Formats: sequence, structure tokens, C-alpha cells
Amino acid sequence: MTIKSGRHFLQIPGPSNVPDRILRAIDRPTMDHRGPAFGEMTSGVLEDIKTVFKTSSPVIIYPASGTGAWEAALVNTLSPGDRVLMYETGQFATLWCELATKIGIEPEFVGGDWRHGVDAGAVEDRLRRDTDRAIKAVCVVHNETSTGVTSKIPAVRAAIDAAGHPALLLVDTISSLGSIEYRHEEWGVDVTVNGSQKGLMLPPGLSFNAISDKALEASKANGLKRSYWDWSAMLTNNANGFFPYTPATNLLYGLREALDMLLEEGLDNVFARHDRWADATRRAVAGWGLENLCLNADEYSSVLTAVMVPEGHDADHVRNVILDNFDMSLGTGLGKVKGKVFRIGHLGDFNDLTLMGTLSGVPHQRGGVERAMTYLMEQATA
Amino acid sequence: MTIKSGRHFLQIPGPSNVPDRILRAIDRPTMDHRGPAFGEMTSGVLEDIKTVFKTSSPVIIYPASGTGAWEAALVNTLSPGDRVLMYETGQFATLWCELATKIGIEPEFVGGDWRHGVDAGAVEDRLRRDTDRAIKAVCVVHNETSTGVTSKIPAVRAAIDAAGHPALLLVDTISSLGSIEYRHEEWGVDVTVNGSQKGLMLPPGLSFNAISDKALEASKANGLKRSYWDWSAMLTNNANGFFPYTPATNLLYGLREALDMLLEEGLDNVFARHDRWADATRRAVAGWGLENLCLNADEYSSVLTAVMVPEGHDADHVRNVILDNFDMSLGTGLGKVKGKVFRIGHLGDFNDLTLMGTLSGVPHQRGGVERAMTYLMEQATA
Amino acid sequence: MTIKSGRHFLQIPGPSNVPDRILRAIDRPTMDHRGPAFGEMTSGVLEDIKTVFKTSSPVIIYPASGTGAWEAALVNTLSPGDRVLMYETGQFATLWCELATKIGIEPEFVGGDWRHGVDAGAVEDRLRRDTDRAIKAVCVVHNETSTGVTSKIPAVRAAIDAAGHPALLLVDTISSLGSIEYRHEEWGVDVTVNGSQKGLMLPPGLSFNAISDKALEASKANGLKRSYWDWSAMLTNNANGFFPYTPATNLLYGLREALDMLLEEGLDNVFARHDRWADATRRAVAGWGLENLCLNADEYSSVLTAVMVPEGHDADHVRNVILDNFDMSLGTGLGKVKGKVFRIGHLGDFNDLTLMGTLSGVPHQRGGVERAMTYLMEQATA
Amino acid sequence: MTIKSGRHFLQIPGPSNVPDRILRAIDRPTMDHRGPAFGEMTSGVLEDIKTVFKTSSPVIIYPASGTGAWEAALVNTLSPGDRVLMYETGQFATLWCELATKIGIEPEFVGGDWRHGVDAGAVEDRLRRDTDRAIKAVCVVHNETSTGVTSKIPAVRAAIDAAGHPALLLVDTISSLGSIEYRHEEWGVDVTVNGSQKGLMLPPGLSFNAISDKALEASKANGLKRSYWDWSAMLTNNANGFFPYTPATNLLYGLREALDMLLEEGLDNVFARHDRWADATRRAVAGWGLENLCLNADEYSSVLTAVMVPEGHDADHVRNVILDNFDMSLGTGLGKVKGKVFRIGHLGDFNDLTLMGTLSGVPHQRGGVERAMTYLMEQATA
Repeated sequence: MTIKSGRHFLQIPGPSNVPDRILRAIDRPTMDHRGPAFGEMTSGVLEDIKTVFKTSSPVIIYPASGTGAWEAALVNTLSPGDRVLMYETGQFATLWCELATKIGIEPEFVGGDWRHGVDAGAVEDRLRRDTDRAIKAVCVVHNETSTGVTSKIPAVRAAIDAAGHPALLLVDTISSLGSIEYRHEEWGVDVTVNGSQKGLMLPPGLSFNAISDKALEASKANGLKRSYWDWSAMLTNNANGFFPYTPATNLLYGLREALDMLLEEGLDNVFARHDRWADATRRAVAGWGLENLCLNADEYSSVLTAVMVPEGHDADHVRNVILDNFDMSLGTGLGKVKGKVFRIGHLGDFNDLTLMGTLSGVPHQRGGVERAMTYLMEQATA
Repeated sequence: MTIKSGRHFLQIPGPSNVPDRILRAIDRPTMDHRGPAFGEMTSGVLEDIKTVFKTSSPVIIYPASGTGAWEAALVNTLSPGDRVLMYETGQFATLWCELATKIGIEPEFVGGDWRHGVDAGAVEDRLRRDTDRAIKAVCVVHNETSTGVTSKIPAVRAAIDAAGHPALLLVDTISSLGSIEYRHEEWGVDVTVNGSQKGLMLPPGLSFNAISDKALEASKANGLKRSYWDWSAMLTNNANGFFPYTPATNLLYGLREALDMLLEEGLDNVFARHDRWADATRRAVAGWGLENLCLNADEYSSVLTAVMVPEGHDADHVRNVILDNFDMSLGTGLGKVKGKVFRIGHLGDFNDLTLMGTLSGVPHQRGGVERAMTYLMEQATA
Repeated sequence: MTIKSGRHFLQIPGPSNVPDRILRAIDRPTMDHRGPAFGEMTSGVLEDIKTVFKTSSPVIIYPASGTGAWEAALVNTLSPGDRVLMYETGQFATLWCELATKIGIEPEFVGGDWRHGVDAGAVEDRLRRDTDRAIKAVCVVHNETSTGVTSKIPAVRAAIDAAGHPALLLVDTISSLGSIEYRHEEWGVDVTVNGSQKGLMLPPGLSFNAISDKALEASKANGLKRSYWDWSAMLTNNANGFFPYTPATNLLYGLREALDMLLEEGLDNVFARHDRWADATRRAVAGWGLENLCLNADEYSSVLTAVMVPEGHDADHVRNVILDNFDMSLGTGLGKVKGKVFRIGHLGDFNDLTLMGTLSGVPHQRGGVERAMTYLMEQATA
Repeated sequence: MTIKSGRHFLQIPGPSNVPDRILRAIDRPTMDHRGPAFGEMTSGVLEDIKTVFKTSSPVIIYPASGTGAWEAALVNTLSPGDRVLMYETGQFATLWCELATKIGIEPEFVGGDWRHGVDAGAVEDRLRRDTDRAIKAVCVVHNETSTGVTSKIPAVRAAIDAAGHPALLLVDTISSLGSIEYRHEEWGVDVTVNGSQKGLMLPPGLSFNAISDKALEASKANGLKRSYWDWSAMLTNNANGFFPYTPATNLLYGLREALDMLLEEGLDNVFARHDRWADATRRAVAGWGLENLCLNADEYSSVLTAVMVPEGHDADHVRNVILDNFDMSLGTGLGKVKGKVFRIGHLGDFNDLTLMGTLSGVPHQRGGVERAMTYLMEQATA
């Protein structure tokens, strides 16, 4: 076994690097989750988390992985056999679709090529044709972590509205929230699904549902059975800063710190640095003569870039070489693009020089790294 | 606001005090949950955790609270409308029963007085009368956290066997595992439910299902829908040390450390010190002239003691005075015994002097603390 | 080897228990000690530390143990062969005297019985007889860590003034500062010596000299050679928040946090809780029928209590039994009282229940612990 | 104030980056420095530290900065007015010389141009001319942190031997030990001076004297007064794992961890990676068309590279731009080369990608970074 020196480069598109401030926060002694100090802390967290989702309505926090929040969004709003419209942006949209099937929903999966975001026109067409309003929800992934493609949520909202369709809009922001612009309320989203380990810079283990009044209304009458994921017990307990069952206290300490960090920096500043790193990364990729999996410039993700390897090469072999030689983890190609792409995460607690280290670790044609560097320097000193 | 100096005394019956070794372990940078180092760590954890449950069969680890593992035990083995026999040992048995109802199971709840453990004879009687084998599972709580009463699981197993009944045996060990003797395999349990924040000395956020072959078989044909809690995807992924969705990586670091600590000390030693503290605590309670909620000496819990306050007193007022004056959290009375008892947790990472500090913080008649101290001293120097 | 569970009880009179806030602070990445962020942090620390010494003059911070600050106080103010008056309050006064001899000073050591503080009258007498002003400094220990006796510094100052003697007044506050009242400026002290590991709640590794104008003046002309301990290079560099050589950066992080904690709580509150714990401890000792080494009630230390064991007993044997059985460290008897006393530290980051745990760990006659507890309860709920 | 995201790049030539393992180690509760657990830990540390110095003789550990260990080396071996031969390799040699003067030694300072190491021939010449053996010690800096020039200690030893001169050989390894090859015993060094914050990867606050039998003999009869720095009290106490005064316990925890890390990796592997990074850095500097302050290829330091800025530029301005734009600290030019060089530290807990990030942060001509990267890749995949 080779002994590695220095810090591992964790440049997968999540979990992102957890800052020391947050690691130290979760390292504090666990407290009584029924005591007054806990209630006070949680009340503040439940209030401040709304700012990140840009909503004035409640946000539910689960002691669970993001996958749990996917399930929660469905079981709180739908009934067995309900039809939902899902859109194949990539692997995570596919997994959400599979999950829906498993729990008794009937998803209609609009096929995609994994290189584009949601086609809002196609959504509108389908909804117009759904004259008996059988479709109860439209489910889309905001930022497809498997492809590096960001879909336009306002366009999807507009499509639903244009079709005059009453379906709920459920959006997965697991890899976007806290890294790129997202507006739960203004964009008219009914349930926003999130996890802790990406833009929120926490370890995995917390997940979220931000809910609209319409979603809340739906949850009062829907037919899917649930207990752990049930919003109503959560909302009742949350009103006083408590939970219906033991919460993941130490991760909540981390969330308190994460919210402080995001609000100190300002979300717009956070988004701006993500955009800048993504731009620099794409310049490197272009300099290497490699192709971005995402085809539309206005759908490029500022969170990650999925880089295609030339035909005849195995992206996972490249990743393993990088891991062995440079102690850097890059994201594997998932599902349909297994072996064809590697993914560079450029999100969360990160900076220009870490990005340059990251790009330097990718075996490449001369020139790409210099392009990224030149861009960053010009930007930094502008 | 008064500034508190020193360490808070967290003497509720869980979350227990998380040792520094574990806090430091969870404070390490999050790693790639799809990389080889993660797989290696997890494989070891999945193997060693079996030792604590005393089983050779798989143990499932969820990124969830213990309540999730309750739900998981049911949704993986039962079908909608299935009848299960549950036993009212206290508040947690009651909550599990309510959960069962919510997810579409039909529990039959054998009433109890919250001062005794499961009456195995009553279980046997009921099963004998279930001639058409409508009852699919018997669900009991090993150590009732709300009452400080420990039920005899081998007796329940014997009752089922004596009745020749095929029902599964599902046992909640949330507040017992890692603190008092428990033997999943030898005792013939089909699903053992556990959480991380008690005897395992971790923060809350992980929960467990230890499963028997019979339970696994049941899970292949049962009718309840599930995705997050589904054992099969877990088992497939766990085979290589991975998970079907993002696990709570940093809590798994803590679990690795917790297993090391428990195995270094030896489970029998761990159990012995819990027994001793419980004995000392009961001597103090007797010295104070107060009554233990648990009536049978052979059902006393070594994890916690629920102390009854004299008529006319409010146990929560007592707890608040203690919290304000001595910065100690004791457990509140739950459900039917709200206001009537306070609970002293004496579990996990703890020692004689911490117990003495704990007992000293309870307003009392002279003499009780001296009794506990005398006992501990005699024992320590024996 | 027995495996210990729970936290070790560190109840020696220093190092005291380092609070988690401070441990987490020193756990942050080391920074550039010549960069602007460092200068800013240090400037704040150098200003706020004055509040704790109650002085408006500079405080020097050494990356060294308290023993170094003893040496620093002497080498910056005295010349080879200078005569100084020292007072034998106990072991630490003795060690300071030996140190003085080693570096070329000629101490005159006024004998004491280790059960009383400095006799100011004896100091005045001796200074009056020093008609040629050969004595250049009077050196006393404020709180004798080896005996639990606190000397009255204002009385010593008054004695020097009454004798009209120009000697400098050098005071060791290593175990008093931040735990009991001390006023560098108001009490007319010329050099106050301190270390980090007692009332400041830090690990050992930093030490201090608070200096008066008169001491500073003396340092410009004195004859003892020095480099590491030299005040002038320190003062020049400190003016901008820097140091003449690499400082102990991470301990300075801890000092920043310690100052925040002390100032948040308020020094008077800190002193009050030390007085209260000392009182409770003495009640326990009396209840046990044991004798306090300190004979004068107005010289009792609020930092520690040195308890005499009955003739024929070995205090270190008692301490070893306590360490083995209860995982608690008490202070050993030092020098002349080796084997005759053990010392209970009741200082720093600590609370009532920790004290009760501490007292419970001392083998004893019945009754002492109850006395302490009764007192604390009455006080807490008063 | 701009909020910085990600980790600061601390690329000064010490303090080096402290690995998380060591930060977590120093974050453990302080223990009783007179108890058996402490003695056991220290005994192991005192033994294992010898491996790093490559000596079988004692190594003294001070709770002090490296400057203290410079002073200790002199005060333990020399007498007031003793003549010592020192060699001006750069700023740190100059400061050691000034220190010698301050404490009453008479150094003879052989001038140097700050671009070469020690000229062993000049040392030999001078010693040959010292026919009355007035020179008591030769003091040299192994790796000049201000210039990035490494001197050949075996050549200096050979020079002394060739001259048949009895002078002691005192060597400063503050920035070399644990990063590049050093052999206290084999190279015939009498006192090796070290500090904790470079190759040992600790925060500053500990320093070291490795001593030869000859040095120990000298310390028994020399005339300089000392107490804090005195070897004899240290050696007596160290024999049982203790110290004559309170040690910096938490930094010793870190040292225990640092020794484990160095020995796990193997010193030869540690040295090899330092050589490789230095080589890569020099290739970048050459690619940028900039000059290395060090002129002899066989004296290039593998710990740091001092890069000369072109005439008319201010190196500190460059450093400030880098700090502001890229949150990276580089070393300032010290003394005679103030403003003329900046120093890139490439030592300690560090890796290839961190180096690439570091080099990318230096404003430069195109090409240099690519050269470094190409070299590292070829090496890594060789």
C-alpha cells in the first residue's frame, strides 16, 4: 500500500469537501433533543434554511439520505397508481423514476439523450394531451449530477401553466441548491428535494423537502401510506423546534454552521464563484481537445463537468490512474455513460488553486491547464 | 442567560454521551462513497457489527433514525392488512404500534401497565388461539426506554415455539444493544431493530436491521411497497462494501470507531459495568425513599431507571430545576407517565464518578447518594 | 490493562480541564505567522489579555512553559549577583528560588511552614533592615499550588511601600490568574508571571509576563544576558501583532477562545464559582474528618485544597487507588509534603456535578459528600 | 472583506501544513503530566524521535520555539566569551549569530553571499589557523530557510576533522529534519537543533536538541548559566518519561502522531517525495524564466525554492497579490533579500496536486506550470 501524503482531492460532484468549520461543528457533544437548547437551535435552522431554498413556506429536514427525500416528496403528495410525468435527463432522473415504480406510482418517463436538459415544450405537449388530468405531478431534476446538464425550472413551470394543468411540480435540487441559483417560491415549485452533501457542504445524512401550500394541501388527502416521511407530524413538532423522532443532532450542528457560512458569504457570491470555476474547467476541457457531455451552452452545469473520453478509452481506467497516482477522486460515469465520461466536481468549499490542482491531475494534452489558469488569473486580478 | 461552565451532564437514556474518540472519527473529511477505500472500510464495519448483534447473518445499516428501522422491519416482511401482535410495554411500544397502523398493518396491541415487561404466557395464549395463523409477526421492545423495564426475549421466543406458531419475531433493541446482553441468533429473533445513539455511543442518524434467514425469505414475497428501506438493494450493494444510495459516511467513520471500542473492551465487560451502575442507581433511589417504575427485580433495566416522584409533585418541574441549577439533562416522563417519572440514563460512555455526579444532582433526602457511593467503592476495590 | 469508560477526571490543580471550545480552536490549521490575518488576531489577543491581568501595560506571551516566564521575569530585570527576597510558601516558591540561583541571582529565602501565606510583616522587617538597598526584588507566589494557600499580594505591596524600599515586586500567579481575584496594576505588581494551563483553561505551552513601567525601565539597564526571554524584541514586534520568532500559533488560537470565554462569563462570575467550589470541598474534607493543609481561613485557596492524610497513611497510595479504581487524577504531595497530602483541584472549566463526582471518588467517612452536596444545592437554588 | 472559500494554501517554508491526524491528536483532553499514562507516552516519544534524528543518543524536547533550541545548544555547551565559528548562509544563520552575541558568546561570522552553502574549505582553513583552539564550536545551518540552499554537513565535519580541531559541531536542522536526509550520529554532529513546525508537521511550540556524548560532556563543565534550557534536569526526568517542568502536553500528543506517520511512510519515502516536488518546482521556475536564488545545483533545497523577481519588481507586492487573489501564503524575502525573492515552500504534508495548485497561483509566463506537471506525471506513472 502506498502511503499518501497531504489531503485527498475529493473532486466528485458530491459529497463535496466539508469545510473544517462544519467538521468541527458536528464534532460537538450530542445534546438532549427534547431540551430547550435544542429547540432554540432547531427553530433558527428551520427559519434560515428557507433563505437558501428561497421560500417562505416550511422546509422539512429528514435524518436520511437524499434518496429518502425523493421518496418523501412522492409519498406525501400522491396516491397508489397515480400517474406522474418524469423526464430522463440522466441517471438520477432514472433512479427517481425507478423509485416511483417501486412505491406504487406509475411514472411516464419522457426519454432523453443525457446530453440535454428537460425539453419544456415536450412537457407542455404531453400535459395538453392529458385532457383527463391523469398526471398528478411533473418530476424533474434541476441539475443532473450524472451529466452536468442543468434544466430550466422556470420553463418547466411555464409549460405546466401554459397547458393549464393542475399537476404538482416536484424538483430534485440535490446537486444544485447552494451552488447555483434556485428559487422554490418564485419558480412555483411544489416540492423541492435536497440533500446535505453538495452545496450545503455537509456530510451526507440529512435531506430536505421544501413544500408549497398546494403540496401541503395535497398531502392532507393523498393515499400513499407513510410514517417516517410524513410531513404532518414533522410540521407539528417543528413548530416548537422539535422532531417527531430522534433527529441527526450532530448533522444539525453542521447545518447551523453551513447556513452561517452561506449567509455570511451571500448566495450570489457563492453562485458567482461556481460559475467561474465551471467556466475555467470548460476552457481546460476544450484545451485538452475533449468534449463536454452537455451539448447546450445555456445548460452547462456550474456544479460539475462531465468530460467524454475519446472512443476506445475507458473513463474508469483514467479515473483509477488518477486516483492511484494523484490521490484524487473524480466522478465515475453512471448508467448509460459508464466508462464514457468522467465527472469533475467543482462545487462547495473550494477555491481557484484547488481547481488548478484538480485540473492538473487529469492526464491531458498540453495547454488546457494553462487556459484555465489564464482565465482565472484574469478574472481574479480584474 | 447564565453561562454554564464545564460539561453538560447528558444523563437521558439516549442519545448517550458520545466519546471523544468517536467525535474525532466523525470529524474526518468525507470520502468518495464509491471509491475503494470506502468499500474496504464498510466491509469491515458490516462484518464487525454482526458481533455486537451476535449474529452470523447480515445487518442492514440505514442513514436514518431508529424510527426508520422500525418501519424497515415491517415493510420488508409484511403485507398490507397483515395482523401483528404487539405488546404495550410503554411509550415506544405504543409508538411502534401507531407506526404499524400508519403504514397499513393491523396490530393487535396487548395492553400492559408500563411497570412490567412482556408477559410471555399471554403471548403464547394469544398465538395458540390464532389457529388460522393470521398473526404474521410478534413485535416486542427489548428494553423499554420509557419505563426502564427489560423484557425477556428468550421467553417470548419460547412462547412462540410452544404455540408452534410461524410468526416472525421482531425485536426493538434501540436502547439495549451494546449495553445489556442481547443475542439475535441464539434467541431466534427474525428482525432486530437498532439505532446508533445509545449503546453504540454514536450521535443519532444511523439505524439497523439484523435479519434472519426466515425474515429474508419473507422479504422476497411480502406485499408492502418500499424503496429506501428495501433490504434487497442493500444486500446486493453491501456485498462489495457499498450502498444503493449515498450513505451517512461520517457516521460510518464513527461506527467503525465505536465497534473498535466495544470489541477492545469486550461486550461482557461493557454489560457488567452497566449492571453495576444500575444497581448503584437503584440503591440511591431506595435511599431517597423513591419508587422505581419497574416492579419486577428481574426486569430492572441496566440502561436507565425511571424514578417515580411522590404524588403531588411534577417530575418535569424537578427536571427543569436540575437543568437550570446543575446543567444536567434527565429524561422526561413520556406518554402515560408524563409528569410522574423522571428517567436517569446510565448507559454508554460513562463511569462511576460521572454516575456519582449525576446522582448528586437529583434533589433528595440525605443518604441515597452515600448508599450508591458505598456500593461503588466496595465493588471498585473488591 | 483495564479499559476505562467515560471521561478521565483530571482534578489536579492544573493543567485544568481544557473545554471543548478551546480544544476545537487549537485544532484549526496553522497559519502564516507573518501574514496579516495573524497580526490581526494577535493584536486582539494582546489587548484582551490585559483585561485578565487587570493592567493597562503590556503583557508578553512566550511559547514556553510557566517556568520560562519565571526565568523571564528575573533575566529582564536583574543583574548577575543581585540579591532578591523570596518567601517559602511551598514547593513552587522553592523551585523559583532554585531557578534564581541557577541563573546567577542571589536569593534570600525567608523560611515558611508550607501552611501559611507570605508574612507581609516579615517582608517589611527585612526590607527595613536592607538599608543599602541591596535587595533588588521581592518575589512571591500568589497561590501556592503545592499547598492550597493564597498569599495577600496587596499586603506585600504595602509592606514594601511601608519600608520605603525600591525593590521590584515579582508575583507568580500561575495557578491563580483567571480563577481568583488578581489585579496587576492596582496592586502595584512589577512583573506578573503566568502560564496557560490553569485558569486560562489552555493546554500548557504558553506563559506570560505582565510588566509595569518600572519593570520595563529596569529591563533597559539590567545586566543578565538573554535572548529568547528578552522583552524588548517582543515589545517591538508585538506592536504590530507579530513576534520576534515563531510563536505557538495553535495555542494562540486557544488563547483567543479562552479570552472570549472568560470575558463572556465575566471574571467576577468566574471567581465566584471558584470560591463556591472551594467552600463545598472544604465542607467535604471537614465531614471526612480530615485536615486542610492551609491553616488560615483567610488564606484558603479557591483553586485547590491540599488534604492531609492521617499519620501512618501514604497519600500517594490513596491517589493510586483512586486512579486505578475511579480513573481520577488528584495532585500528589510535592517536596516537603510528599506522601502527606493529596491535592484536589477545583479550577477552570468545571461544574457542581463534576465536583460531586470528584469528591465521591475520594475514599472517606460517610457524610462529607453529603455536606458538600447540601451546600451546593442550597447555593444553587438560593 | 472578501470571504474566502476552500482551504488556504499555506506554502511558506514552515510552519508547514499540519495534517488532520495531527490536529485531531492535539485536540485530545490534556492529561496529568505526572501520571503513569503520560510517562508511558513520553518514553515512547523520546525513543522514537531518535530514529528521525538518526541517533542513539538522547534528544531533548523543549516546550519552546526553535529559537529556544538554538539558545539551548549554546548555553549547555559554551562559556561566557567563548569564540564560535558561524557561517553566513542567510538570515537564519545571521539571527543565530546575533543570538550568540546577546547571550555572551563571541561569534566569528564567516561572510557569505546567501546564494551558496557553507564552504567547508573555508571552515577548515580557519580552524587550522586557530592554533590555540580558541574556537569552541562550529555552528552551521543545514538548510537555510531564507535562501533555499542546503549545506553539506558531512563536508563540514570532514573539515573540522581534517584540521584536527576539537570544536563542537552544532547544526540547525529546523527546516530540514524530516524532509531531507539528515544523520546526527553518522555525520558526527554534537548538537542538532530542531523545531516542530516543518518536517515534523506539527504546529510550532516544540523544539529539540539532539546531543552527542561529547556535547553532553561539555555541558557538565561549561560556564553559561541556565535553568529552562538545562539538559541535565531534562535527562534525569526524561529517564522515566517525565519533565522537570510542565511540558506542552497536547503538542506531545501531536508529536506521537507525527512520529507514527513518518515511521509508517518511511523516512526514505518522505525524502524522495520532497526531492521530486523540489525538482518539479525548479522546472516551473525555469519555465517562467525566473532565477533560483540558490546557485549550485548540488545545494538546491528540497524543502523550499527562493525565486528571484526581475529587477524593478517587488517580491512582496507579488506575494500580496497572490494572497489577495488566490488565498495563498508564500514566504517573504528576509533580511538582505527582502523584496527580491519570494519563497515557495514544498515540504511536509503535501502532494502533487497541491503543488500544482501552488505553482498555478504564481503569476507567470506560460509554460512553467506545464513543465512541472509534465515532470510530475511522467514520474507518477513511471
